[in-house]
Amino acid sequence: MEQQVTEQSKRYKVIGSRPVRHDGEDKVTGRAQYGADISFKDQLWGYVVRSPHAHARIVSIDVKAALAMPGVFAAVTNADLPQLEDRMIQTPEGAENMRYMTDRFLARDKALFKGHGIVAIAAKDRFLAEEAGKKVKIKYEVLPAVVTPLEAMAQDAPALHGEIVTVTLGEKSRKRTNIVSQTRFEQGDVAAGFAAADVVVEREFDTKTVHQGYIEPHNALALYRSDGQVTVWTSTQGGFPAREAIAAVLKVPLSKVKVVPMEIGGGFGGKIPVYLEPIAVLLSRKTGRPVKMVMSRAEVFQSSGPASATHSRVKLGAKKDGTITAAEAWMAYEGGAFPGIYAAMGAMCIYGPYKLENARVDSFEVMTNTPKVAAYRAPSSPQAMFGMEAVLDELARKLGMDPFALRLKNAVEEGDRRVDGMKFPRIGLKETLRAAMNSAHYQSPRPSGPHQGRGVAAGFWFNAGMTSSATVSLNLDGTASVVTGSVDIGGQRASLAIIAAEVLGLKAEEVRPTVADTDSVGHTDVTGGSRTTYATGTAVHDAAQLVLKELHKRAAKLWDIKPEDVMYEGGVFRHKEGKPEIKPLTTRQLGEKLARTGGPVSCSASVNANRGVGAGFGAHIADVEVDPETGKVTVLRYTAVQDVGTAIHPSYVEGQMQGGVVQGIGWALNE
Amino acid sequence: MEQQVTEQSKRYKVIGSRPVRHDGEDKVTGRAQYGADISFKDQLWGYVVRSPHAHARIVSIDVKAALAMPGVFAAVTNADLPQLEDRMIQTPEGAENMRYMTDRFLARDKALFKGHGIVAIAAKDRFLAEEAGKKVKIKYEVLPAVVTPLEAMAQDAPALHGEIVTVTLGEKSRKRTNIVSQTRFEQGDVAAGFAAADVVVEREFDTKTVHQGYIEPHNALALYRSDGQVTVWTSTQGGFPAREAIAAVLKVPLSKVKVVPMEIGGGFGGKIPVYLEPIAVLLSRKTGRPVKMVMSRAEVFQSSGPASATHSRVKLGAKKDGTITAAEAWMAYEGGAFPGIYAAMGAMCIYGPYKLENARVDSFEVMTNTPKVAAYRAPSSPQAMFGMEAVLDELARKLGMDPFALRLKNAVEEGDRRVDGMKFPRIGLKETLRAAMNSAHYQSPRPSGPHQGRGVAAGFWFNAGMTSSATVSLNLDGTASVVTGSVDIGGQRASLAIIAAEVLGLKAEEVRPTVADTDSVGHTDVTGGSRTTYATGTAVHDAAQLVLKELHKRAAKLWDIKPEDVMYEGGVFRHKEGKPEIKPLTTRQLGEKLARTGGPVSCSASVNANRGVGAGFGAHIADVEVDPETGKVTVLRYTAVQDVGTAIHPSYVEGQMQGGVVQGIGWALNE
Repeated sequence: MEQQVTEQSKRYKVIGSRPVRHDGEDKVTGRAQYGADISFKDQLWGYVVRSPHAHARIVSIDVKAALAMPGVFAAVTNADLPQLEDRMIQTPEGAENMRYMTDRFLARDKALFKGHGIVAIAAKDRFLAEEAGKKVKIKYEVLPAVVTPLEAMAQDAPALHGEIVTVTLGEKSRKRTNIVSQTRFEQGDVAAGFAAADVVVEREFDTKTVHQGYIEPHNALALYRSDGQVTVWTSTQGGFPAREAIAAVLKVPLSKVKVVPMEIGGGFGGKIPVYLEPIAVLLSRKTGRPVKMVMSRAEVFQSSGPASATHSRVKLGAKKDGTITAAEAWMAYEGGAFPGIYAAMGAMCIYGPYKLENARVDSFEVMTNTPKVAAYRAPSSPQAMFGMEAVLDELARKLGMDPFALRLKNAVEEGDRRVDGMKFPRIGLKETLRAAMNSAHYQSPRPSGPHQGRGVAAGFWFNAGMTSSATVSLNLDGTASVVTGSVDIGGQRASLAIIAAEVLGLKAEEVRPTVADTDSVGHTDVTGGSRTTYATGTAVHDAAQLVLKELHKRAAKLWDIKPEDVMYEGGVFRHKEGKPEIKPLTTRQLGEKLARTGGPVSCSASVNANRGVGAGFGAHIADVEVDPETGKVTVLRYTAVQDVGTAIHPSYVEGQMQGGVVQGIGWALNE
Repeated sequence: MEQQVTEQSKRYKVIGSRPVRHDGEDKVTGRAQYGADISFKDQLWGYVVRSPHAHARIVSIDVKAALAMPGVFAAVTNADLPQLEDRMIQTPEGAENMRYMTDRFLARDKALFKGHGIVAIAAKDRFLAEEAGKKVKIKYEVLPAVVTPLEAMAQDAPALHGEIVTVTLGEKSRKRTNIVSQTRFEQGDVAAGFAAADVVVEREFDTKTVHQGYIEPHNALALYRSDGQVTVWTSTQGGFPAREAIAAVLKVPLSKVKVVPMEIGGGFGGKIPVYLEPIAVLLSRKTGRPVKMVMSRAEVFQSSGPASATHSRVKLGAKKDGTITAAEAWMAYEGGAFPGIYAAMGAMCIYGPYKLENARVDSFEVMTNTPKVAAYRAPSSPQAMFGMEAVLDELARKLGMDPFALRLKNAVEEGDRRVDGMKFPRIGLKETLRAAMNSAHYQSPRPSGPHQGRGVAAGFWFNAGMTSSATVSLNLDGTASVVTGSVDIGGQRASLAIIAAEVLGLKAEEVRPTVADTDSVGHTDVTGGSRTTYATGTAVHDAAQLVLKELHKRAAKLWDIKPEDVMYEGGVFRHKEGKPEIKPLTTRQLGEKLARTGGPVSCSASVNANRGVGAGFGAHIADVEVDPETGKVTVLRYTAVQDVGTAIHPSYVEGQMQGGVVQGIGWALNE
């Protein structure tokens, strides 16, 4: 694998540098505290008894024998969860029915997938809890199951939830179906477009369920106090969304719940939803003791959200010169056992890189007797683009065009409209494609051995904005601290410290970044959707600018001049006309005088960063060799070109790209 | 004991109420985490070998045998501390010589008091560290010691530090002395005042060293990482001052040190200085392991700061009508083995409650071969006022006046100048004295049994302001969180939550207060000097006001009107002209709409609260009975009247008063 990151110009002093991450030492010495590292002396362990059936009516649950075991403290079922109303609310994963939120944790009347929680037990240790779990007697009436989207869409398919609210092309109706929604985006005249095409290619694709496969299993430690205050320590991509989910499920105000997001051993989108947290809270409430839960690897695979399997059909028509005249796609996304929004996201992504006059996509969110799906790196995009890019390749071959040249010919640029109606701000797809085409890899001869070949593809993610908060405080020696609520999944702490350092004229090491719990910083949405460095970075930038503004006042006070006569540049405050009697001061020097000029400086900023979000693009090249006997594929060479914007800490951007490539190869070849 | 707190008027909704403290449940169930509750699996324990002599030259230190013991990892002495320059710096306890800062932790060439640390050992457990300590061979040359201020002031007294910088009436000079400073405040013509007096009383007093006697001994857990980042968990009255002391001693920038202030089991001023923290850091640096240290009770008494012993002479003259014509005082404060500022504070306090035309006080800070003294509830005031109030009582008897009436006749009020030159803002001494005089207790007959009597006294504390920071964030359901850096020694969390709740129109329970570590909030000075609810409360108030200001904008956006047309009153936002189509919204209701109106709201404020600090006064009444055979004193009845300003949470104000009375009785009768 080789890599290239174009370093940004020398516009910045700290941005673009590669300081050692502030949390690096704790990570490599094993001192970093992950969810399972937290313990209380009197804690109990929780264990979830899960359904062995993909679909089954729960006839009866008998926990007597389990509870009779010495050291077993409590059992909870769905009946212990508040029976929430049949009402849609906004969650980090989009709109969700309150009722389904609780049923996801512990099954109500039916087990909806193999691994669906039925009963949770609290006992004095982990093994006893599991042993007690074996003594729980659950009678099931096994029902026919549907495990692929196509099976689940069939007219006579067993309906997981009976009648549901289904949204078809924006119209709500109530019927017996597994189809949660049909999203259509359409523009131009697709039939006319195909009629005008010189070449048409249409293919059908299946992708399989893939789990995010993070190293650290889900975990939660919950403490419910008799005054109703709850603290949950957990591995999550967002302390605030986790708090909101827990508070909603328990029907308590947010101020009653504190979530402490621990270091996270991988998430990739899969640690946006909560799984164990509300169960641990219920068990803690019932026992008056802290309750700890950690999933086994098998539980992670059977009970936590993978990325959707899909079935899709993609049809493209093009002129001889490569201009795409029409595109049509039909996609069905495995949703798992509860409603979601992954099909709609796939529809937003499939045509992302391309300027299409005539296009239509229909995307179906389908419930199946499998775990509810979750986000996985640019959620829903890889499945959609897998078909799109494969058809483009075939089209290029038929047209005798270079596959990148075909993509470049149809590439979107600033001002183009996406099929979902959004207009692109400044984007870098063309630059990305050209960089790929000009890369040493692409300029080298295609591998020419037997069973060797070269594949290329473009990729698209719309990027999210959402809301973030940050507090930036200057220490009395002019060094600084940055507090955010963004869980650090990929080097955020370092990036956010760099942003503050850049604004304040400090070194990255002079800024201490902290990921705070939900009591200690303003609301901040989930770490995910490629939003964090952008949105939380903006909040940090804004808070640091407020600090600068206050420092202008302090310098003015010190020098007995007007704040507007203070100039700040390159980390140095000076008189704007450079009066010789006024000695310039660095931020560090001015910081040392805070106590004497009116006290400390600490500023907070919150942003809604939805505006201004630009999409991200990639162009990847893979040389591979296939063993025709075993099917084993060897990756000979791989080049990834990404439109990443300004790389705040290039090492982490490279790390993200390397990780993305490795996970993509895994998805394509091994899973 | 009976108590009375005058409830404030119904100006407030939440201020003045008595919600259960937010940290109450954790405190009563034992879940609250104090310093000694934190442990690492691979931690070592530190132990300090201390001097058995009050004054001795250290001839040699031999740690070989100790280090040879299996499980013993390291030893440090003063030589491992940076040799700091002979320069005064500002510390939480006032100006201090850098050089003395390090010598306080571990003796340089001389042990200066019994209990002075000489060598610190790190070993795998607490007992082994202590055993190893016994194997350290230290040769001493015992020197003559001075243990009272008068002894230490004698011409031929052994000088603890040889030549020092001494400040006499503002003049610095370098000489061989134990007298650190002589502070004089003077006004009018004292000789003329005494000449005009009808009655003169002069008495001499001794007060003894008294330790603050907090339940929880000093402790520290330090982790020094190979990248130079330090974290210290400790029981302290101020995370930030502790950080500054540690960073100064180690000569590193503040951004390298994080102090996590744990719950505190009492401080009373005695946990402002650090003792073990820098030693634990040194041992951690030397061993690469976290090092934990906890003092024994004996170590607390022998090695941590008590309140000064004093010797004083007080002379008062008065006219027959009770007008004090002259006051003269001479005081010597035990400073312990290093320079301090306690004598100067005593001089500021002695005449605090009284309007004196002609007065002079001389106060001497004297180093003695005892532990360096520390603050203890209105530091230096009780010792000074003990003499002043006793002389006033005798004066009242001689004048045939009621002792409170004499005090009331000479009481200060707004606009009066203090002997140190400060002018009083609005204060409440006269009201306090009148309330005491009108109390049921004072109106009741004096106890008339044998050996029974009644005593009264007034008290004064100037109160501190200093700097504080706070961040107030609104949750997405309109509840709020408050983050401050003020260690909670007396119910601050509840009080600060109440202040935010009052501003935002929430219930106290809807606000979650957090005491943050030094990375997570803006600089905040020590909890002490009666400054916290006032100064940090002001920062919370200011931050909450910023939140309100932003909420005006959000309401305006929601209603499509101008922010200035939004009116806020009693927790409700409405159109200022009450347009019927605009439905008023509570903060909770508006909070739920934050995500849709531009994102979260989180605001920080920092204050320098030195301006506007008003002094506090007390008037106490005690009925006692003395057993003439044993000397045992039984307190028959006690009434405390305090000028507390607005009681934010009256229960904690009462608690402070009760605690003050109990400690005062202890000081007077048992210590």
